[in-house]
Amino acid sequence: MTTESYDLYPVARLAAAQEATAAAGLDALLLTPGPDLRYVTGYQALPLERLTCLVLPAEGDAFLMVPRLELPAAEHSPAARLGIEFVAWDETDDPYAAVGARLGAAARVGLADRMWAMQSLRFRDALPGAEQVLAGTVLRGLRMRKSAAEAAALREAGAAIDAVHAQVPGFLKAGRTEREVGRDIAEAIIAAGHETVDFVIVGSGPNGASPHHELSDRVIRAGEPVVVDIGGQMPSGYCSDSTRVYSVGEPPADFLRYYDVLQRAQEAACAAVRPGVPCEAIDAAAREVIAAEGYGEHFIHRTGHGIGLETHEEPYIVAGNAEPLAPGFAFSVEPGVYLPGTHGARIEDIVICTEDGGERVNHRPRELVVV
Amino acid sequence: MTTESYDLYPVARLAAAQEATAAAGLDALLLTPGPDLRYVTGYQALPLERLTCLVLPAEGDAFLMVPRLELPAAEHSPAARLGIEFVAWDETDDPYAAVGARLGAAARVGLADRMWAMQSLRFRDALPGAEQVLAGTVLRGLRMRKSAAEAAALREAGAAIDAVHAQVPGFLKAGRTEREVGRDIAEAIIAAGHETVDFVIVGSGPNGASPHHELSDRVIRAGEPVVVDIGGQMPSGYCSDSTRVYSVGEPPADFLRYYDVLQRAQEAACAAVRPGVPCEAIDAAAREVIAAEGYGEHFIHRTGHGIGLETHEEPYIVAGNAEPLAPGFAFSVEPGVYLPGTHGARIEDIVICTEDGGERVNHRPRELVVV
Repeated sequence: MTTESYDLYPVARLAAAQEATAAAGLDALLLTPGPDLRYVTGYQALPLERLTCLVLPAEGDAFLMVPRLELPAAEHSPAARLGIEFVAWDETDDPYAAVGARLGAAARVGLADRMWAMQSLRFRDALPGAEQVLAGTVLRGLRMRKSAAEAAALREAGAAIDAVHAQVPGFLKAGRTEREVGRDIAEAIIAAGHETVDFVIVGSGPNGASPHHELSDRVIRAGEPVVVDIGGQMPSGYCSDSTRVYSVGEPPADFLRYYDVLQRAQEAACAAVRPGVPCEAIDAAAREVIAAEGYGEHFIHRTGHGIGLETHEEPYIVAGNAEPLAPGFAFSVEPGVYLPGTHGARIEDIVICTEDGGERVNHRPRELVVV
Repeated sequence: MTTESYDLYPVARLAAAQEATAAAGLDALLLTPGPDLRYVTGYQALPLERLTCLVLPAEGDAFLMVPRLELPAAEHSPAARLGIEFVAWDETDDPYAAVGARLGAAARVGLADRMWAMQSLRFRDALPGAEQVLAGTVLRGLRMRKSAAEAAALREAGAAIDAVHAQVPGFLKAGRTEREVGRDIAEAIIAAGHETVDFVIVGSGPNGASPHHELSDRVIRAGEPVVVDIGGQMPSGYCSDSTRVYSVGEPPADFLRYYDVLQRAQEAACAAVRPGVPCEAIDAAAREVIAAEGYGEHFIHRTGHGIGLETHEEPYIVAGNAEPLAPGFAFSVEPGVYLPGTHGARIEDIVICTEDGGERVNHRPRELVVV
């Protein structure tokens, strides 16, 4: 970790999480490897069948259960700065029983939202008196408000995925398959500084009408629009996610009609971002433009999702979510129009709510790029 | 999916899983995206906060709960060949309640081993009368015995990671950091045909003594051994995992002494593989060689783990696991010796148990490679 990375995971966050745990009426959080653990400790622990778990009681000292062979990694991680006990367990020990023995009287524990069943069921049996709830109920309030360092990490991720989109026109050619193009993109995502490739969607022609189509052996043909939705995780832990639409040669006229509508809808939603506006109002801002032009039934998903240590996290930009935006909230704005069997389009930027508006971290042109 | 891929995920597997569910006394399996779902259906569903779940009752018809925007992807996946109902749900529906309504009388359900707590707790509330156990108790017997197609997929993954190891001497130079070398390796893992990079461990000098050290900004110096443990997932879904040790210039004499011991231990464990031999005996075969030479206390982890759709799955090659090997079992054989603060070494191949022995899928030289 560099000094800069340390700012992303300040030591004071452990105390903040403990305070939130007590305030929520939970006796402890149990955080296995994943975004919740990384957020609280900075430790990017391997997600393994062997239990690594931060036990954060509402009162008293936190400790980290860690397999002995992960101990050196934990000791070299940012978690070592927290001054908490590391409890190493050996290959034939039962670490769940050990946690149970320490937390015997707990009545309510919060599990990392992504804890695997193979672990949560063991904790259920080791802590039979404890009701299990989600740690997210405690941590969401903290995680949604990105700090200045987190916003900088999202900008860095945005610049990296923008650099990949800048190369996409060079990868797209009639006669190549989606998979071939996707392979080039995956390499470029790593070369641009990401630690992992999280997803590569290349939806050509009718495949562009399936929002979460990934890659196929379909050959891209001249005159076809291609939806390219890509993202990865940076060494900082923060994620990128951006969608642009390309066309291999001139696209059909019916496509151009709704692409223009879509672009205006995406602009309208981005322009609506400011503190106090409910999440659902951002969704509505995009949806109204699309519906007014008669494409409402073809916009079949919510407008966006929060992003940070996870590609999809709170807040969700969806009808029914009255949560008001606040400075630091970061999320995608990605309306789409999909004509089943024909083609589709989606334009996506990551937006950070500021004191008086929204800041996009993606800056590639949003006009259709004809290759 | 190509025709070849279909052989990896035969349609008959659904019936086999259903039969095993009934035999285990469970009322249903609930399989969310991940290796269990992919094994049973071939569907590589995105792991999302939106619920996708195969509901496989012990008797009666299976169905797939799927978010409406994932429906086209599901319909183009191998799951479409199974002839089961796809139940699409909309952004504002409650898919957990829908599963609960259909499975109301279930007394015991098996959850995908990697189901997230954000899903298992919702199922707990939607099926209050159902005891939750792990689907792995039902599926492990099937998943451990790799079919001929699965063995071929593991050989393909082995060849891909071997191709990366062949390039590692070109990446390693005194003066470069582990992270720089790791970046090159990650790109090569994708270029060699993997879909994702799962892990890149470059442990130079003292970092080689931490088995799960990943990458740091440490500069590699002349005369240092470097442990390189790398793997990824192929488009087939099957994983690679192989470790070799390199030295940038001539290594210290104390390193060479135990490297030779380690190489003999790894050979002994591989040679012990055949049907009927307990997993723990493979562990013992490696451990005995290392202990006999006085390095026993420096071999601080089990000898190996199963591999397939997950990098770590059953069977585990560890003391206390009396499970007898059977043809098709596939696992790593990776003893190590670690001198804290000094250096370490590990040699790892994936081995498939055959009718009369073991077949390694990794073929790079196991001798120390001096760069």
